[in-house]
Amino acid sequence: MASLLCPALVLFAARLSGFAVGLLVLFWVLTFKSTFLPSSLSQQDFIYAVLHPLLMVIGFILLSGEAILVHRWLPGSMGLKKSVHLGLQGVALASGIFGIWTKFQGKDGIVANFYSLHSWMGLICISLFGIQWLLGFLNFWHRREAKIARIKILPWHVFLGLYTYALAVATAETGLLEKLAFIQSKRNNVSKHSTESLLVNSLGLFLAMLSGFVILAAVSPKYGYHTLQSRQH
Amino acid sequence: MASLLCPALVLFAARLSGFAVGLLVLFWVLTFKSTFLPSSLSQQDFIYAVLHPLLMVIGFILLSGEAILVHRWLPGSMGLKKSVHLGLQGVALASGIFGIWTKFQGKDGIVANFYSLHSWMGLICISLFGIQWLLGFLNFWHRREAKIARIKILPWHVFLGLYTYALAVATAETGLLEKLAFIQSKRNNVSKHSTESLLVNSLGLFLAMLSGFVILAAVSPKYGYHTLQSRQH
Repeated sequence: MASLLCPALVLFAARLSGFAVGLLVLFWVLTFKSTFLPSSLSQQDFIYAVLHPLLMVIGFILLSGEAILVHRWLPGSMGLKKSVHLGLQGVALASGIFGIWTKFQGKDGIVANFYSLHSWMGLICISLFGIQWLLGFLNFWHRREAKIARIKILPWHVFLGLYTYALAVATAETGLLEKLAFIQSKRNNVSKHSTESLLVNSLGLFLAMLSGFVILAAVSPKYGYHTLQSRQH
Repeated sequence: MASLLCPALVLFAARLSGFAVGLLVLFWVLTFKSTFLPSSLSQQDFIYAVLHPLLMVIGFILLSGEAILVHRWLPGSMGLKKSVHLGLQGVALASGIFGIWTKFQGKDGIVANFYSLHSWMGLICISLFGIQWLLGFLNFWHRREAKIARIKILPWHVFLGLYTYALAVATAETGLLEKLAFIQSKRNNVSKHSTESLLVNSLGLFLAMLSGFVILAAVSPKYGYHTLQSRQH
């Protein structure tokens, strides 16, 4: 893939989609306040409602995408790359946990949040992410030991990490759709053709693009190796 | 990854999730008829409403998953594998197009279907799939020519194919959530704790599992090679 691909271009495309995603989600929560502020809710509930998409999209998805990309551009030793990767993923994990926690503050209680497909996917996602991070953390402190065992485990870490990342994006898509279905059907009676619908749909598309470029950057060979599949021919 | 992984086990897990997905979607559309038959609609509309999830989940997603797996288990020549892969993907593409077409038969007209995130993702997905299939088809008829060029293009075909497959699953998740939000909010007033909600959520989870196992099978080295990432250490 390397010969057809300029790694810098893929990184640029990933950052450009990421920038669009960040901008759109910020613009959404700050401009369309009525979506996040049902009349019955207090200022505090509004803050929690706004924090959820911000923490999940910017803190969790964008940051963990950057953590994945670290191995593709950061110069220096492998130890440095691993430290930055682990650190960024740690902040992403904390954002994710905090983002889910904001949903526990509603008047319906914690359990009320565990019935939708969005919440099921989100819980599986954050659990996988947490396990991955913990294993990565433990691995980091035992880096001189059992190097061969670590090399064998690494492809699993990469696969499960990218799977979790894709699952996070898919979960976000369901979250966007859930929110849109809610505001289109009930109190706000927002039209399907409204600016807000268009904005949220665009956010969903940029998220899908972002995940594609991040995963492409992660799986592209860095030093001009053929990819796995090409050996079949 | 090969040394830690039994390829037959991954194939079995993929088939088991696929079987659960097929069973759940069939059980859903055949048992919960009220979901697919608003009182105002005719028998014909009911058939179209039922056909959409069946064609997209069984015809499009399950079949294209099988087409991906062909390269992992079918014995015989590479030509045979490619023919079966191309044929199965062709049927999957036809199912996908037919599945989208069923949504054009509603009284709201064709354009009414193009406002939701689900439809945007679905259209991008079927377009990518169509382009991939067409290129694969053309490639198939020129297999003696420019072998080196084909080997260079193959990793792109694999990456874009798996990306499209994952996007199809993410699109299905948004579709499930859209349908659930609709039946929970309006006429049917189905509870979030109902058997139907549980069934559709489980369908969503098995779809996510299925995609993980299919992609794992596709990217795992077949002959014991190290994966790309392991060379970094």
